[in-house]
Amino acid sequence: MYQPGSAGGGVKPSIRIDILSGVPEVLESPLSHSIVGRAREKGLVEIYLHDLREYSTDKHRKIDDAPYGGGAGMILTPQPIFDCIEALMEQRSYDEVIFPSPDGDLFTQKEANELSIQRNLIFLCGHYKGVDQRVRDRWVTREYSAGDVVLSGGELPALMMTDAIVRLIPGVLGDAESALTDSFQEDLLEGPVYTRPAEFRGMSVPDILRSGDHKKIAAWRHDEAVKKTKEKRPDLYKRYYQNRNIP
Amino acid sequence: MYQPGSAGGGVKPSIRIDILSGVPEVLESPLSHSIVGRAREKGLVEIYLHDLREYSTDKHRKIDDAPYGGGAGMILTPQPIFDCIEALMEQRSYDEVIFPSPDGDLFTQKEANELSIQRNLIFLCGHYKGVDQRVRDRWVTREYSAGDVVLSGGELPALMMTDAIVRLIPGVLGDAESALTDSFQEDLLEGPVYTRPAEFRGMSVPDILRSGDHKKIAAWRHDEAVKKTKEKRPDLYKRYYQNRNIP
Repeated sequence: MYQPGSAGGGVKPSIRIDILSGVPEVLESPLSHSIVGRAREKGLVEIYLHDLREYSTDKHRKIDDAPYGGGAGMILTPQPIFDCIEALMEQRSYDEVIFPSPDGDLFTQKEANELSIQRNLIFLCGHYKGVDQRVRDRWVTREYSAGDVVLSGGELPALMMTDAIVRLIPGVLGDAESALTDSFQEDLLEGPVYTRPAEFRGMSVPDILRSGDHKKIAAWRHDEAVKKTKEKRPDLYKRYYQNRNIP
Repeated sequence: MYQPGSAGGGVKPSIRIDILSGVPEVLESPLSHSIVGRAREKGLVEIYLHDLREYSTDKHRKIDDAPYGGGAGMILTPQPIFDCIEALMEQRSYDEVIFPSPDGDLFTQKEANELSIQRNLIFLCGHYKGVDQRVRDRWVTREYSAGDVVLSGGELPALMMTDAIVRLIPGVLGDAESALTDSFQEDLLEGPVYTRPAEFRGMSVPDILRSGDHKKIAAWRHDEAVKKTKEKRPDLYKRYYQNRNIP
């Protein structure tokens, strides 16, 4: 077990996240920099990586084997995973054991919100081909998918879910940034955004955004958001519309 | 511009991927290990990271600024991105400039398949709040989403897309693993998988998988796959059903 990057500060962390993987080195840089890295430095979240090989009782530290019944691909064996999870559960209780899998429900902001108020989470990263079903039957409480796409393992989805969860922990983002997260949760895509310079390679920022008329700006932004959502995501627009009983 | 991890070997790479980011250090470990790392070592793919700060003409190497019209959050300014993309395009032509964004189409295996036969790709990673719209208008050819979830930036989605694409490059996976990728593309989820030991903590592998009767095993696996897909992903099952004209 180890913490990549810097250790926590003096604050009591809101959440502890334990990530189990056969290739934990993949996980290091995204957990050590940017918003998640800074949240860990501030002690707002504890994240521990567990190398499944270290839990293997096999003399070659093997953690996978061929599937029963034949076929291609290697399956993660139950022993290292059971031993690692049991060692963790002896020390504290966990709210969820999450297995990123193409079989799972699509991970969305709703799931990130729910998980962000938990205390202790385990992510179990599988190979693409999967883990022995007995692990899922015995331990896994949630299976989430990052979309209908074949990935090398659960590591990148686990990082994505961790990022979405950690951003929601109080104190991780400044107030201004937190407000943004709330606004996404309103079911509308954001319209176009612009920053300096006002003229760049012959392309101008829309006049209205430079008018100083905050009421008109807000109306323009709302119209652009509705237009974009209607065009690109009719499903989201429908939800927005229904939630507000717009006639 | 730099290549994290090891440099390529003597093979002519199939794809070159350039990733632009304000926090390129986030991207390093997932590109240096496991399947993507080995594909780069074998010279089957070239991946270059570009730190947008290095392209900034600002004396403090600033790459973002406040939005026109007011509001929270910072927007990536056009100058460093234009200069970086123009420098790359002077050297070779690019097939796509991909911007991971919650506005985009959901990235699936179909998009991974399409991109895996291209030669040169650019990924532009934005902050959550976004990039100046002029960048999108001028350069971006594809916008893909990793789901309806707020992330700190485009880095993790870009890594996920890169992983999905690189796995499809001939020679990256062994034949056996490649076959697995094909099987996912059939629109059925995979049923339960098991490996050794046959008995573990009182839980047994289903007898049929140990029967040696390959015809029965194949039928069992197909039934389990159909059952799971029907239950968990009726949308996928419907597609499977329609594609095969099952009555």
